[in-house]
Amino acid sequence: MSILVLGTVALDSVRTPYGARKDMLGGSAAHFAMSCRLFTNVNLVAIIGEDFPSKYIDFLHKKGIILTSLIKERGRTFKWEGEYKGDLNAALTLNTELGVLSAFRPSVSEVQRKIKYIFLANVDPDIQRHLLSSMHSPTLVGLDSMNYWIHHKRVELLRLLKRVNIYVANDQEARALSGENNLIKAARCLYSYGPGMILIKKGEHGVIFYSDKFIFCIPAYPTDKVIDPTGAGDTFAGGFMGYLTRAKKINAETIKKAIAIGSVAASFNVEGFGLNRTAQLSLNELERRLIKFRKFISF
Amino acid sequence: MSILVLGTVALDSVRTPYGARKDMLGGSAAHFAMSCRLFTNVNLVAIIGEDFPSKYIDFLHKKGIILTSLIKERGRTFKWEGEYKGDLNAALTLNTELGVLSAFRPSVSEVQRKIKYIFLANVDPDIQRHLLSSMHSPTLVGLDSMNYWIHHKRVELLRLLKRVNIYVANDQEARALSGENNLIKAARCLYSYGPGMILIKKGEHGVIFYSDKFIFCIPAYPTDKVIDPTGAGDTFAGGFMGYLTRAKKINAETIKKAIAIGSVAASFNVEGFGLNRTAQLSLNELERRLIKFRKFISF
Repeated sequence: MSILVLGTVALDSVRTPYGARKDMLGGSAAHFAMSCRLFTNVNLVAIIGEDFPSKYIDFLHKKGIILTSLIKERGRTFKWEGEYKGDLNAALTLNTELGVLSAFRPSVSEVQRKIKYIFLANVDPDIQRHLLSSMHSPTLVGLDSMNYWIHHKRVELLRLLKRVNIYVANDQEARALSGENNLIKAARCLYSYGPGMILIKKGEHGVIFYSDKFIFCIPAYPTDKVIDPTGAGDTFAGGFMGYLTRAKKINAETIKKAIAIGSVAASFNVEGFGLNRTAQLSLNELERRLIKFRKFISF
Repeated sequence: MSILVLGTVALDSVRTPYGARKDMLGGSAAHFAMSCRLFTNVNLVAIIGEDFPSKYIDFLHKKGIILTSLIKERGRTFKWEGEYKGDLNAALTLNTELGVLSAFRPSVSEVQRKIKYIFLANVDPDIQRHLLSSMHSPTLVGLDSMNYWIHHKRVELLRLLKRVNIYVANDQEARALSGENNLIKAARCLYSYGPGMILIKKGEHGVIFYSDKFIFCIPAYPTDKVIDPTGAGDTFAGGFMGYLTRAKKINAETIKKAIAIGSVAASFNVEGFGLNRTAQLSLNELERRLIKFRKFISF
């Protein structure tokens, strides 16, 4: 079993109360892949520029991530610069340089077109649609987006939502797209847009899952070690989709476990800058924390 | 087994997106008592003014709440006026009239002094200390406070914390008193102030429990029916303390169940204005929702 993830591979510069890092390997697809690789083969679809350090390519390769559709183009790699203050729950974007991302047209091999599990991480909805249209017959399609697209490409995003099974949004995005403040109402509204499963990520407050069959809520794994939350949402999605891909069955039991696994994966991500912590993570270590997590939340 | 709760009995005027109510029965002790009564005999210690409607006294009496230490004094009853907007997670206080509360010196009967389970709901820390000092030998003392006292009577509050077993705070209060943004760090800091158990209420995001023995987190009961959240925190505390009083044993199992019960009780409170919903609540109904809640959060 394998999965295909479309998204960004970026150079991230981040400042948090615990320090600053410049031009780290980052991006939605990279963070997704780093937790997803623990469960399945990950085919990464993204674009980088000429300035992209070859050591980062080697690093992704060594982690077992399939890079045949990571294309390099003339120009500069997508860059994001952000800062976290106070409770580290919200990033303040200081600067974004799209670079080669602005002309990204993903293309995948004939073999990759047959992959059944797809995750469309945050990029322009037109790029997400373009890729999705090239896939043969996916079994499970997950989609993430962001406030910028909700406001600037709402029609395109809504059209795309009709074609995906899972919509993953943070609480602000869920509220913005649905116009509902209450998150259960927001989830119900988003469900009516098409996806059979809605996942609302609330950062340090955990996750709400909504479908017509059941609702599921869990808090975040309780941790006092939050160094850099960048990519936590993508790490969550990577663990969630990775587990479902490996489980092959999609039912209440596997979905709940996938959400718990994604939450635990995200709790490792925040413990280091960029991909530092998740790159060191083993399935064994994740499973040990999963056992602790269950204990923390069951009564 | 019985419990004694010190706090306010108030006349609340509230505006939410679902309507407005004037001079409803409210206050920390009233909300606490309304969920606590499902589990144990509740002795309410509070003050009211001459303007307090007798129908509210009859109402509390009919609900089985013991009112021998609800004193009526010359002057006006404590009044609170507030408004909720948007996601209804935070109240905007429009007006507060202390009335008789400003001269409140609680006094309890000799029989009540022997009560082992005590909850000091939100009033001036000096009043809380005064009452606590008059109790013979309490087994379990819980305390709630608010930002006003954290800022204006910090020393008194810290002194009091050394004498209680459980400190119940919302996330803002926990951050303000500890100076820590991360809630696990905040809980650890508050624990160092004296109470063996720290409960941080996060409104729609649930609860974090911290002790030296274990950590426990649960989300709020997922509901889209939030009419008026006033008193949800006190309702939570009432269910929590009520269950512990009835259980008699204080261990990880009973504490976790008490937190779940408090959460479910709070989910009923928000479904109606003031005490409307919790006043109708039966133990049977609460237990049915508890079963659903466990399903919503277990994996």
